[in-house]
Amino acid sequence: MLRDQVKQVAEGQRKLAALSHEEKNRILRSMIAVLQRERQSVAEAQRLDIEAAQQQGISSPLLKRLVLDQEKLDGLCRGIEDLVNLKDPVGRILTSRELDTGLELYQVSCPIGVIGMVFESRPDALVQIASLCLKSGNGIVLKGGSEALHTNRELFRLIRMAAEESGAGSDWIFLLESRDDVTAMLALDDLIDLLIPRGSNSFVKYMMDNTAIPVLGHADGICHLYIDDEADIIEAVSICIDAKCQYPAVCNALETLLVHSGIASAVLPPLSSALREQGVEIRGDQRVQDAVACAPADEEDWSTEYLDLILSIKVVDSMQEAIDHIHRYGSGHTDGIITKNRSRAEQFMETVDSAGVFWNCSTRFADGYRYGLGAEVGISTRKVHARGPVGLEGLVTYKWKLYGSGHIAADYSGDNPKQFTHREL
Amino acid sequence: MLRDQVKQVAEGQRKLAALSHEEKNRILRSMIAVLQRERQSVAEAQRLDIEAAQQQGISSPLLKRLVLDQEKLDGLCRGIEDLVNLKDPVGRILTSRELDTGLELYQVSCPIGVIGMVFESRPDALVQIASLCLKSGNGIVLKGGSEALHTNRELFRLIRMAAEESGAGSDWIFLLESRDDVTAMLALDDLIDLLIPRGSNSFVKYMMDNTAIPVLGHADGICHLYIDDEADIIEAVSICIDAKCQYPAVCNALETLLVHSGIASAVLPPLSSALREQGVEIRGDQRVQDAVACAPADEEDWSTEYLDLILSIKVVDSMQEAIDHIHRYGSGHTDGIITKNRSRAEQFMETVDSAGVFWNCSTRFADGYRYGLGAEVGISTRKVHARGPVGLEGLVTYKWKLYGSGHIAADYSGDNPKQFTHREL
Repeated sequence: MLRDQVKQVAEGQRKLAALSHEEKNRILRSMIAVLQRERQSVAEAQRLDIEAAQQQGISSPLLKRLVLDQEKLDGLCRGIEDLVNLKDPVGRILTSRELDTGLELYQVSCPIGVIGMVFESRPDALVQIASLCLKSGNGIVLKGGSEALHTNRELFRLIRMAAEESGAGSDWIFLLESRDDVTAMLALDDLIDLLIPRGSNSFVKYMMDNTAIPVLGHADGICHLYIDDEADIIEAVSICIDAKCQYPAVCNALETLLVHSGIASAVLPPLSSALREQGVEIRGDQRVQDAVACAPADEEDWSTEYLDLILSIKVVDSMQEAIDHIHRYGSGHTDGIITKNRSRAEQFMETVDSAGVFWNCSTRFADGYRYGLGAEVGISTRKVHARGPVGLEGLVTYKWKLYGSGHIAADYSGDNPKQFTHREL
Repeated sequence: MLRDQVKQVAEGQRKLAALSHEEKNRILRSMIAVLQRERQSVAEAQRLDIEAAQQQGISSPLLKRLVLDQEKLDGLCRGIEDLVNLKDPVGRILTSRELDTGLELYQVSCPIGVIGMVFESRPDALVQIASLCLKSGNGIVLKGGSEALHTNRELFRLIRMAAEESGAGSDWIFLLESRDDVTAMLALDDLIDLLIPRGSNSFVKYMMDNTAIPVLGHADGICHLYIDDEADIIEAVSICIDAKCQYPAVCNALETLLVHSGIASAVLPPLSSALREQGVEIRGDQRVQDAVACAPADEEDWSTEYLDLILSIKVVDSMQEAIDHIHRYGSGHTDGIITKNRSRAEQFMETVDSAGVFWNCSTRFADGYRYGLGAEVGISTRKVHARGPVGLEGLVTYKWKLYGSGHIAADYSGDNPKQFTHREL
């Protein structure tokens, strides 16, 4: 039964949590060694999955995501090596305070517990998330795409082997193989502490809507740029082209552009030419249509994440109108302003309630690697726990350790009570 | 319609979020002034509620919680004054990093958005949470106990009046009056960012089980102490008496005591006498019954939060057995060890996965005031967002502000890419 298996993961996690940083790193290095040593068996599992996929005639982008060749495997191993070099996210002292003489309080980072991760076709995600969970001392219940069944099974076997060889036990990781197990997992809110779904918007939304377990992730990424009437036009065009075209299929790509009416006639013609050169289809409101040749945007365009070479553009009469539009249609992912006016930029960044608020740069920088987080667990548009690109700190919480020497609460109440010192240590 | 009203709260919150620390403090001071000035109208509302309660014959503890007399009102005003003196929780820079020359990233604390708070009879909670939300720039949707209807309505009116008088608008706060509204609120996960229920365990559990909105709080507080075989017996007795008896009706009171078999015959007799002197009923397992006169504990006792002068006691043969018992029956609130052996204490505190892990002191210290948090929003046994006693930082999240000067992502990829500097500022 799934419940019993997840309980076993929880027990395995407690053993994992007791390991030192050096012991966890030894297992990570062992993972690299095993993945390299057993590359033939990974290739064999890949062959089975890819043959089956081809027989089923799956689409070529899906097939591409399924592939885990030697180059990708080497990249994964380099990623694990990077992780080895990161500081231990666990055991960091966040607060230290003397409450009274001999009574000391420490707020210390610790693993969250058991993470549930469901990802679609890419089997590399299995290795990435397993190594992130290991580094942060968390147990992990995984479910990969059925197209990668054999590869996932093999990677899972190798990770367990590496953990076993290091003497750490491998109960902290468990692989699910059926959809029913995923449904059952969503109900285990007493055993699973955090869910991290990776996949299509509808898939993530489904997870968010069907569980009481906290979810780290994002469904939509409807990113906006607002070109203020005090923007530098050349800079504005360059940033918009980058934000829309550099990689349109990702969540931090630009989807809607808002242009101040005072600069629209100056910026829209050169921008339109540059977008057209990149093969971008423009959908504009009436005033955009008046300025440049484009398709009309309808109400639905403002709330659509195209993930494609399509851009909706709207002319607004004030920054406030732009901000209101972003709050109404945005997804709280990343939204930016282009202006030479610093105080207006500050006001925009203060008021817009998104995980990322950018000034004079491309939305494409919203990324854990670019932010310098070391490793990226995911990007979250949730308001609590972690927001925006999330590094290893998204996999830890904290506990309060209180060291006393016989202290009792009664001494601090009633007549003539002792006073707390509350002195930062 | 509730949805429209909560949308209005969200809009009011955006105005609130734009206020400076000084402006927010001015409203807090205005709240104090209005509460003192209008004390007669509060007393009149109290009279109506208390008369109605007496007519309905409600129990005396419930009636006591309903009372908001001048002394309590003065206490509330002192609490607001303390809040004025706390640092602004918003606008704190958590990370600052140069990504490249002229491209600077700041992780800055900001309000969460709209908080939903449901509390039972105590009307003081309304003023406390409204002032905490104001200080942290959050909108708030409140629902109080129906017994305090008139008092809540009056306090709500006064808080709005204070906010209006300060010119800040008062749309950021809204009072619900029906149970149907609470049910409807639980479904507004797109508008409400965090729920804070205060009340009975079953009530909090109901909230947790019936919403997709993150919940800050705790249902049970089944706190344990483990007396190790290397404990100081006099200290152990003193701590147990304090943890059980100093205020048995609260969540951080001791409910189950675990005693190492190597010290049981030495510690149980003096402990049993001391507990009896305080009127505590002991329910013990077989070995406890063999050592002292007591009632037998059954399986259900281990998972019961008595909130009363009852203590369940079990003899264990090792610290590991104690830890396993805590993980099996505990609620992750606060659990402590009593021992002279420091390394064993460290191991206990490392392994026990609770919000508070204590050594040689009473569980009763698990409290925001005692921890020196300045103000307490609640105590959470959840793993993510905030854990244990939660201060104002539980009402803020963060956003990432990226300041560029025309930076585009394309420059950092392809042939001859620019390198990120990732230099801490």
